[in-house]
Amino acid sequence: MTKKRLTILGSTGSIGTSTLDIVRQFPHHFDVCALSCHSQVQQLAEQIREFHPKIVCIGTQEHADWLKKQFTANDLTIVCGDEGLIQLAAETKVDLVVAGIVGSAGLCSTYAAIERGYDVALANKESMVLSGELMIAKAQETGSTIFPVDSEHNAIFQSLVGHQHSDIEKIILTASGGPFRDTPLANFSEITLQDALNHPNWEMGNKITIDSATMMNKGLEIIEARWLFDIPVSQIDVVVHRESIVHSLVEYTDGSFIAQLGLPDMRIPIAFCLAYPDRLPLQNEKMKMTELGKLHFEPVDWKKFPCLQLAISAANLGGAAPAVLNGANEAVVAAYLEERIHFLEIAGILEKVLDQLCRFQETGKNNIPFLHHIETIDDALKADHWGRSAAHSLIN
Amino acid sequence: MTKKRLTILGSTGSIGTSTLDIVRQFPHHFDVCALSCHSQVQQLAEQIREFHPKIVCIGTQEHADWLKKQFTANDLTIVCGDEGLIQLAAETKVDLVVAGIVGSAGLCSTYAAIERGYDVALANKESMVLSGELMIAKAQETGSTIFPVDSEHNAIFQSLVGHQHSDIEKIILTASGGPFRDTPLANFSEITLQDALNHPNWEMGNKITIDSATMMNKGLEIIEARWLFDIPVSQIDVVVHRESIVHSLVEYTDGSFIAQLGLPDMRIPIAFCLAYPDRLPLQNEKMKMTELGKLHFEPVDWKKFPCLQLAISAANLGGAAPAVLNGANEAVVAAYLEERIHFLEIAGILEKVLDQLCRFQETGKNNIPFLHHIETIDDALKADHWGRSAAHSLIN
Repeated sequence: MTKKRLTILGSTGSIGTSTLDIVRQFPHHFDVCALSCHSQVQQLAEQIREFHPKIVCIGTQEHADWLKKQFTANDLTIVCGDEGLIQLAAETKVDLVVAGIVGSAGLCSTYAAIERGYDVALANKESMVLSGELMIAKAQETGSTIFPVDSEHNAIFQSLVGHQHSDIEKIILTASGGPFRDTPLANFSEITLQDALNHPNWEMGNKITIDSATMMNKGLEIIEARWLFDIPVSQIDVVVHRESIVHSLVEYTDGSFIAQLGLPDMRIPIAFCLAYPDRLPLQNEKMKMTELGKLHFEPVDWKKFPCLQLAISAANLGGAAPAVLNGANEAVVAAYLEERIHFLEIAGILEKVLDQLCRFQETGKNNIPFLHHIETIDDALKADHWGRSAAHSLIN
Repeated sequence: MTKKRLTILGSTGSIGTSTLDIVRQFPHHFDVCALSCHSQVQQLAEQIREFHPKIVCIGTQEHADWLKKQFTANDLTIVCGDEGLIQLAAETKVDLVVAGIVGSAGLCSTYAAIERGYDVALANKESMVLSGELMIAKAQETGSTIFPVDSEHNAIFQSLVGHQHSDIEKIILTASGGPFRDTPLANFSEITLQDALNHPNWEMGNKITIDSATMMNKGLEIIEARWLFDIPVSQIDVVVHRESIVHSLVEYTDGSFIAQLGLPDMRIPIAFCLAYPDRLPLQNEKMKMTELGKLHFEPVDWKKFPCLQLAISAANLGGAAPAVLNGANEAVVAAYLEERIHFLEIAGILEKVLDQLCRFQETGKNNIPFLHHIETIDDALKADHWGRSAAHSLIN
């Protein structure tokens, strides 16, 4: 393959370090041109020494000044803050931008890269949940291709390559079911924070692990899939697959299903995004079909996981609803992690926030424009923020 | 999709009638131009009345004469015998030839269609086992695309579409394991013909059902895959998957596996071949992922199924060996179906035939050219015939 120039947004996070792991395995395939991180300045300094980017961005001026003292050569530009991040994402001439920033903080830089027409390896879920319609429309306008990094959406991308969009019957997201897939609803009142943080298959951050326990993660993934693959929510299904080996499937109109399988290892989807249309001969442990034993596929228990239905409702409401739900969920999960609310209260608070939004929309009483129409990234961020505030009020 | 003109070779067989079933569901998508069958003259007459082909071929002059009395209009050409079949396959101007004839009888007509540059939906396994190298070389020369109908190879075809050949790590054929997958080797001496004919997943003819019980079918499929997908035998694996839901997989160099899944229903792969690159919204029962329960994946027990290793040896020997093995297997299975030999004797006889071939090749004593090089379809047929004769001698 021809050498690809990379920007890595969120280079010290989980996606960023995995990306750099792959670059380390294939140094002749990639040029790391730009790196950004929020606050891990020591780690960023090490990455600069190893990968020699042309430009880096860090959250604060203070950290930027520290970096400037470490790297005095003229060939490194050091910027900081939100403006620096957008400058880095948009102005550095690259072939692919890895959008690995977690949370709504990743929206503006992702959008800047898409606006500039760069291809994006998208790990920032909020870009699609909060502003999928805007991002996709902009990508179509500029010719930017969005490669999903998330294992489920990457599997769908791989299962669609070479097949016709008009032949899709359904997109089927697999879900591990999280730690409570086998817990009877009657026992949910006994769930502790420690139980919820104990994910059976994937090692992830606390927030996403709780989202997995409530299955809100799968709900948000439905919203992402709706935009990434231009498919109505009614054509997106979820199946519980406890082994996380089949990462998702596409059902076609003739009854054929195409699936992508592999060990639960994020380097596989990241490498796919980095190398597409080529593939990288990764040196990690490979799955052996003969050693799989049994794979399970079961329906979702909708009564146990009401967050999933809430996300579908938000997707169907459209407009600000997914952003509001996302913001509210962030606030509720933060409160849950602080043990201020019980696991069973999570969905109830989110439902009330969505109800408030619906009432505002129906009565027209609330004249906050972004609750009615999302027209800019800023609108999406405001809707998310409104959802957080509404949830905070209910929690307190 | 634009209307496709079809020739169906073997129209009264299982693949032929399933193909016509699909044409019946989608009459605006297909024009049946030519039909051929061996001896089911009444059924062919009904097919002529329903599908109005321009030309038909039947095995004997007597049957052809009978048909001419039934269909006196000028717009139907009726031919017969091997020459008639080749005329029909090569001269009828169509978009796709469905090669549905079973056994070595299907070779010449398939080759004639490929020579003419027609796309072929290939259900005739022997075309690849006996003469894969010749067929593929000719197809590359004429621009004919070969679409595999067999569920495993069709799954691989679907799992390769849109991906790069150079990125293939392995092709993994799934095998139901046949009726004896759970029978301990110690009990194989008690296997009856009735046991062997009782396939757990697919309803097929007797010959192929026995091949499934010995797993020779999977061995022959390895040889087919080797040619269809231009991949060394060392890169083809087999995994036992008792449910026949995952029809096969491709492993790529990055650790991603792409698989095609579906109910075990031959109309799905046939429809894929007929409509490619489109898909047909078939009305058959569709698979529901949430109702699958468990899927099993296990290694092959090579000691229980020595035929599989014999096929791999034949593939590695190359030249006449696969054709010789195929012919010998036909003779041995026929003898087994007549209860002239026991199930456990099948592999032993085949091994002796392959040994004979090796000795001829090594010593150079036997100056039969087709045992050394397969240069024509006739050579392949002769090698197959030699295998049959060698097996017959050993059986008697």
